[in-house]
Amino acid sequence: MNYPDSIQQLINLLSKLPGIGKKSAERLGFYILSAPDEFALSLASTLKQIKSQIKNCRICGNYTEDDICAICSSTKRDRSRICVVEDPRDVFIIESLKLFDGLYHILFGIISPLDGISSEDLNIEPLIERIKKDSIKEIIFALSPTAEGETTIMYISKLLAPYPAKITKLAYGLPVGSNIRYADLVTLAKSFLRREDLKGDGP
Amino acid sequence: MNYPDSIQQLINLLSKLPGIGKKSAERLGFYILSAPDEFALSLASTLKQIKSQIKNCRICGNYTEDDICAICSSTKRDRSRICVVEDPRDVFIIESLKLFDGLYHILFGIISPLDGISSEDLNIEPLIERIKKDSIKEIIFALSPTAEGETTIMYISKLLAPYPAKITKLAYGLPVGSNIRYADLVTLAKSFLRREDLKGDGP
Repeated sequence: MNYPDSIQQLINLLSKLPGIGKKSAERLGFYILSAPDEFALSLASTLKQIKSQIKNCRICGNYTEDDICAICSSTKRDRSRICVVEDPRDVFIIESLKLFDGLYHILFGIISPLDGISSEDLNIEPLIERIKKDSIKEIIFALSPTAEGETTIMYISKLLAPYPAKITKLAYGLPVGSNIRYADLVTLAKSFLRREDLKGDGP
Repeated sequence: MNYPDSIQQLINLLSKLPGIGKKSAERLGFYILSAPDEFALSLASTLKQIKSQIKNCRICGNYTEDDICAICSSTKRDRSRICVVEDPRDVFIIESLKLFDGLYHILFGIISPLDGISSEDLNIEPLIERIKKDSIKEIIFALSPTAEGETTIMYISKLLAPYPAKITKLAYGLPVGSNIRYADLVTLAKSFLRREDLKGDGP
């Protein structure tokens, strides 16, 4: 005897979530079944809402409910510094450190030949356009300290070399081979403050 | 800077799921955001579907998309044995053992004064009615081997004493204090096969 179809379908969908195996998906599915109707219905409507309301900022690519995100449209930010990140999620993490008041640029990935992700798949061209157009003093790479992160930094640094902006990356206080998203905030803050100058004229 | 409202709402809802903390909820939320639209939308529609289509079987209380569940409406089951469980989920686990071909009865909880759950909150009266009406040879209690499970078995056993049905419970091969849902299948199968006779005239 199997689960009724719709329960099985819910379990299948939940087990596609990262870190959720078959057993966990069953536990979550049965929790949802036994919870008040309101829970499943508000989860359903929030999921739909997210797909209709959340867009990518026209300037930096960050998640926003408007055309331009809260950071890009703020008058209080230092518009001469751009922090380059892999994913919108990294913006929220760096913002939580409260030590950077510049702008962001989201690449939506890093160069990773093994996963079939090349430089053309990334949001690089609009970054160059921003640097051409605006007067940018510093580009800070806040990418994961992995071979793929390094490759991406090297690749984009070369493209940025003709422009006057200083190019920096986070200090390797980060444990090499890990993922930036799971670093502890102290280590992340240190590596942010001690970011390295890739052009070698001192931070 | 906070997450846009709808993202924050999604994270809040996900963090209400059992075993999902704030960090995990963020990871799941951002995964859903970056996944193809289809994923979030089919999850949304499955959640709505579950709440509209899944009902409790009129006889045993099990989850079903019909009025009466597949087990209660089957002509191949032994209608003289009823296995009493706490939760619909336990039915699917016991079915997976493929060693019981009788019917089920779901209590929807166990007596637990600390959680404010008393015998009146449980699906006990309809069990008595089933035993009065049908010719039942055996009632098997498959409840978690905890103080609450024991109390529930003792309480219902007393109510069932006047009827001729044999009353059994799962053998305590199960580690005491654990939860029936997380037992390994071998231990669960053994405890099912060696179930104890509570009236003492041998299994």
